[in-house]
Amino acid sequence: MSGRISRVTVTPVAFRDPPLLNVVGVHQPFVLRAIVQVHTDSGLVGLGETYADQAHLDRLAAVAAALPGLDAFDLHGLRRVVVERLGAATGGAGASFGGMLEVSSAVDTVAAPFEVALLDLQGKVLGRPVSDLLGGAVRDRVPFSAYLFYKWAGHPGHDEDSWGEGATPEQMVAQARRMVDDYGFTAIKLKGGVFEPGHEIDTIEALAAAFPEHALRIDPNGAWTVETSIKVAHRLAGVLEYLEDPTPGIDGMAAVARHTDLPLATNMCVISFDHLKPAVAADAVQVVLSDHHLWGGLRRSALLGGICETFGMGLSMHSNSHLGVSLAAMTHLAAATPNLTYACDTHYPWKSEEVVKPGALEFRDGSVAVPTGPGLGVELDEDALGTLHEQYLRCGQRGREDTAYMRGIVPDFTPNTARW
Amino acid sequence: MSGRISRVTVTPVAFRDPPLLNVVGVHQPFVLRAIVQVHTDSGLVGLGETYADQAHLDRLAAVAAALPGLDAFDLHGLRRVVVERLGAATGGAGASFGGMLEVSSAVDTVAAPFEVALLDLQGKVLGRPVSDLLGGAVRDRVPFSAYLFYKWAGHPGHDEDSWGEGATPEQMVAQARRMVDDYGFTAIKLKGGVFEPGHEIDTIEALAAAFPEHALRIDPNGAWTVETSIKVAHRLAGVLEYLEDPTPGIDGMAAVARHTDLPLATNMCVISFDHLKPAVAADAVQVVLSDHHLWGGLRRSALLGGICETFGMGLSMHSNSHLGVSLAAMTHLAAATPNLTYACDTHYPWKSEEVVKPGALEFRDGSVAVPTGPGLGVELDEDALGTLHEQYLRCGQRGREDTAYMRGIVPDFTPNTARW
Repeated sequence: MSGRISRVTVTPVAFRDPPLLNVVGVHQPFVLRAIVQVHTDSGLVGLGETYADQAHLDRLAAVAAALPGLDAFDLHGLRRVVVERLGAATGGAGASFGGMLEVSSAVDTVAAPFEVALLDLQGKVLGRPVSDLLGGAVRDRVPFSAYLFYKWAGHPGHDEDSWGEGATPEQMVAQARRMVDDYGFTAIKLKGGVFEPGHEIDTIEALAAAFPEHALRIDPNGAWTVETSIKVAHRLAGVLEYLEDPTPGIDGMAAVARHTDLPLATNMCVISFDHLKPAVAADAVQVVLSDHHLWGGLRRSALLGGICETFGMGLSMHSNSHLGVSLAAMTHLAAATPNLTYACDTHYPWKSEEVVKPGALEFRDGSVAVPTGPGLGVELDEDALGTLHEQYLRCGQRGREDTAYMRGIVPDFTPNTARW
Repeated sequence: MSGRISRVTVTPVAFRDPPLLNVVGVHQPFVLRAIVQVHTDSGLVGLGETYADQAHLDRLAAVAAALPGLDAFDLHGLRRVVVERLGAATGGAGASFGGMLEVSSAVDTVAAPFEVALLDLQGKVLGRPVSDLLGGAVRDRVPFSAYLFYKWAGHPGHDEDSWGEGATPEQMVAQARRMVDDYGFTAIKLKGGVFEPGHEIDTIEALAAAFPEHALRIDPNGAWTVETSIKVAHRLAGVLEYLEDPTPGIDGMAAVARHTDLPLATNMCVISFDHLKPAVAADAVQVVLSDHHLWGGLRRSALLGGICETFGMGLSMHSNSHLGVSLAAMTHLAAATPNLTYACDTHYPWKSEEVVKPGALEFRDGSVAVPTGPGLGVELDEDALGTLHEQYLRCGQRGREDTAYMRGIVPDFTPNTARW
């Protein structure tokens, strides 16, 4: 069957999100995502999902217009098209991450959703799951982690949401309890960088007491100094499976790593291929959190996995707020990455809306079964897509602005980077 | 169509080889290779090719017996089978290389021909070339280099072969002339380490004078000391595109690299994934020669390519004496590896026998067109396979013994490693 691309659509959508707190501010009322549909002349459709800030949408549109005629197996050709269409204007890709991250080139972030869609198409041409295109699933279920956030009870001016406030250790244990009860997670990650470190350590210790068998992590998104990071690493050495981004930058992480045996993980100082050489040279991190949205798609993420194995680093998986297309892609990738031995992060429990038809992706015992149908194994619900697109049009958000939204409520707020 | 493996055969073959000289001795009258055929229950056959010393054949047989039932898309499963079947006995994989190389594990060398055969099968299931399974061809022709060897006029006790003696610079220019005339090569590699360095430099300079437009390389297989290597690097700085393995070991290469801007290439000190971290740390090499037979197959070689790109090293391709199955695999791999920008090595012009049907692989202007048929795009000639298998049975060779063969003729010969 032919895999010639005939038409590509990129549909921005918005779904509701609770007021989750982080180092740069607070999640806005809506998460923006873009759903990519790549059609072939034989009537197949491949799906991808990515960020949807306006700068990113503009780049996606430029690439989408250039893809018709390309073969779905020509992943190198896709990359060539992206490089050509972005031209010199590849910088400033950090807008998708609320100001928390910056990458020097937008090529990988722009290529990623199209690459996933092409792999979805390849799987459909073949009648095989995407995991088969990545070397085959080495596990039939992929474990995810409970992703806890300090949070407000509700968005200002709105009712309290069903999760309520998350601030005290007791409230965070209750948040974890609900997630573990509902999803069966066996690993728990706390997004930190919101309160002073003592409070966040208290939270971790309360979680450790309440969930003695669970693997625990904390990610303050670089809110701490090197000195504080070392102190926390010593305090939590027997409690955490890894400590994620305690302090900013490769040099800072390396300085912390020299003083602790607790593995340091990152999704901030190593988020693109050009960060790997300096990070390896400095022995800055022991675990890299992959993220196919950031690293150029599933094949490039498999390359990252191979690099981590070759250079003696562990591998975990990062998540931004996402929908089911991305959950399917993350699940296939994790299933086909032998050295991805940590439970993957996911924001999935925080959302209440979806664009894929139900049934393909379900959590049981903290894990998702790898879809066995052709391609990603998920199907778009066109009505839901339309509804969430209308929500995008109405919601008024056109980028991720955690800091600006926070300042609308707490005028003197400044991001907490290396504050403590 | 199903890709379930039903039966696997491994057929050792022998083909005639001229008396080509190298650092450890001289090529024996026959090259041993093994042809792997992986059959599926739907009647497809996938092809692979590898070394055929007895230790390697024993390992291949153990794996071949365990493969029925495996799915052709389950490349991770293949690797698991190889690891399981080799158990702790994974060392000593150096026998395939005439004593010139050693790797700490046989997993990659044993997995490689089966991986190629599974990719050939995947391509046949799909009706697409193997290059499509590697991300798509970025070039429709793959350039190879003329691979010159100092050589005797003929094997002792036999007639002079058609190439005649290769010892003086004039003879080597004539050898190059024939190869360039017959194949159109635009790059020339001289296998050195045979004569004292002054003679080999004279040869390179004669080649440079005779072929001023050609890219030149010399590979003395570590025959030189660090001091000699630095001197040669200075002498040939404007003449060579890279200097391959002038001296043994990562530390030695790093010591040379500190004194020259001429890129140093290797197929000796970085030949498996566990060599990459120390080589990068020492900044020992600027070009890695990939070789899918050594590096675990085509997907693992693509990983090597990605690692080279990520860590700022160039990528070229190594060759041992090989037949058409390997030439097809090398061509697909090179075509689908964007940063493989050097002409690949091949021993192809030195052989006069073949196991694949003619027509699929032809040299023109020094390059081979990437086969566009399903899988590797080559078909086995069963009669030729039988003939070369009988030749294997008759020839008496059961391993690669360049040094022993040389000593049968030059009793006091010792390998030239770091001799000069």
